[in-house]
Amino acid sequence: MYRIGIDLGGTNIAVGVVNENYEIVAQHSVPTGAERPAAEVIADMGSAVETVLAKAGLTAADCESMGIGSPGTCDSENGVVVRAYNLNWFDVPVCRMLEERFHIPVYLSNDANCAALAETVAGAARGCRNMVLITLGTGVGGGIIIDGKIHAGMRSAGAEMGHVLLVLDGEPCTCGRRGCWEAYASATALIRQTKEAAKAHPTSLLAKILPEEITGRTVFDAADQGDAVAEEVIRRYCVYIAAGFTDLVNALAPEMILLGGGISRQGERILEPIRAYVADNCFGQHEGAIPVIQAAQLGNEAGIIGAAAL
Amino acid sequence: MYRIGIDLGGTNIAVGVVNENYEIVAQHSVPTGAERPAAEVIADMGSAVETVLAKAGLTAADCESMGIGSPGTCDSENGVVVRAYNLNWFDVPVCRMLEERFHIPVYLSNDANCAALAETVAGAARGCRNMVLITLGTGVGGGIIIDGKIHAGMRSAGAEMGHVLLVLDGEPCTCGRRGCWEAYASATALIRQTKEAAKAHPTSLLAKILPEEITGRTVFDAADQGDAVAEEVIRRYCVYIAAGFTDLVNALAPEMILLGGGISRQGERILEPIRAYVADNCFGQHEGAIPVIQAAQLGNEAGIIGAAAL
Repeated sequence: MYRIGIDLGGTNIAVGVVNENYEIVAQHSVPTGAERPAAEVIADMGSAVETVLAKAGLTAADCESMGIGSPGTCDSENGVVVRAYNLNWFDVPVCRMLEERFHIPVYLSNDANCAALAETVAGAARGCRNMVLITLGTGVGGGIIIDGKIHAGMRSAGAEMGHVLLVLDGEPCTCGRRGCWEAYASATALIRQTKEAAKAHPTSLLAKILPEEITGRTVFDAADQGDAVAEEVIRRYCVYIAAGFTDLVNALAPEMILLGGGISRQGERILEPIRAYVADNCFGQHEGAIPVIQAAQLGNEAGIIGAAAL
Repeated sequence: MYRIGIDLGGTNIAVGVVNENYEIVAQHSVPTGAERPAAEVIADMGSAVETVLAKAGLTAADCESMGIGSPGTCDSENGVVVRAYNLNWFDVPVCRMLEERFHIPVYLSNDANCAALAETVAGAARGCRNMVLITLGTGVGGGIIIDGKIHAGMRSAGAEMGHVLLVLDGEPCTCGRRGCWEAYASATALIRQTKEAAKAHPTSLLAKILPEEITGRTVFDAADQGDAVAEEVIRRYCVYIAAGFTDLVNALAPEMILLGGGISRQGERILEPIRAYVADNCFGQHEGAIPVIQAAQLGNEAGIIGAAAL
């Protein structure tokens, strides 16, 4: 049997069919056109599913289920996208609408949860039943897998891992609170820290090479050229990431923590200091329940695979 | 069918038999004598079980299972107490030893986890499948119930909720890290905050009534007499508790958070400001996944009931 996965984004809808090993056997992508009514977008999702089934030489009857990874708050139990600002969707019963068209069960979860699930079925956490995926981007996203299943909690509102405290009453966060992990460990926060360091050290190489558009990579580029100020920004940023990882270890004792998002492409350069900090600071220190800490593997395909695995 | 619960403490071993409604039908308590070899303590646990079965007019064959709530780190999968300093137990296969004597399955978990489970089967969280119990005492203990089961994570090392950050690099914690929730929200921390406030405000009523032995109640007694300094200590202490609760909401979205330990006897006086802070600060604020926040109900019986429910 096959499964269908839909990665519903604010810009594109990516649809794929996976086989029993969660390998994508066919895929197709269409623009979301999120400015349109939800019913039109869902009709396009359905058409994309038909296209991808045709590509694979299959029909819906060959598929066990369909899954959707959506941005925003999803009510997985009832198959309803409760609130997704970048789609302008509020209380959209997307599962029911696709079930009526394809007559197979349609499941729904948040895209961050799907990415975590995908890593357990086909990525860096294959076979792992208790893990957390943390994605560093504009914000800090999280997906928690407990006992092989997504843990999203009441009204699927949990795993907002970016919004646990690092510093009570610290830096302002987009969520309205102060001191959240996201305000220190997101790529956005790294860019802020890069700017602040360049301003504080105007004669540093970092300040001199500072481009018009600063990204999460800028500080790594400066460090590559031997800049000590940039190295210090990176060192401190790794502490921010690792302090949050340590909290995850103490609270949930996952077997594995995966790091996703653009920053994770820095690989061992950031993973090594993160691992060292976790081992030094978790409960029981080096005798504690230290998880495997690695970069996520699946990148763009995580959305389709995770949705298919729902 | 009945079940046997053993609450193994550093001072006493409390054994009880519960019926299908988790009501204790007979119980018996003996001193632990933790200075003795583990085998002797376990022999006494067995004798206490026999005493309590006789009291109830039952035999082990009338019981479905036996459970043990132990301090320290427990390997629930293998039934081994890995490390319990106040018992001086290291790698003690307590379950196997009692199974050989009673020929029924014997389960094991940490006492904080048992207390949480007890509240779901017979206390304030009856019927609730996703909840967290936080106990404020010398430290901050936690038990997490997900999908009706204890979540303890890898090597049963999780739910060390006291050791998640409130302030990166903040107050020193007993675990070796700085800034843990426990260093702000435990009864020990409240006593420290009480002393500091009395010292900073030597003319306050709090400073004047300060007894020889300051306890977690001292500051509440001063507030009862209208002392503003004491009121401010309590206000800030509730923020510390509530900030950690808010993290639990954002990460796990439990349906309910219960507060246990001596401080919880202050009831609405601390629960009301805690609830208000959580609603103001959780993700989505007043539209967020705000759990029911209550005091735990079972007190001393939680250990026996939770162990029996394993």
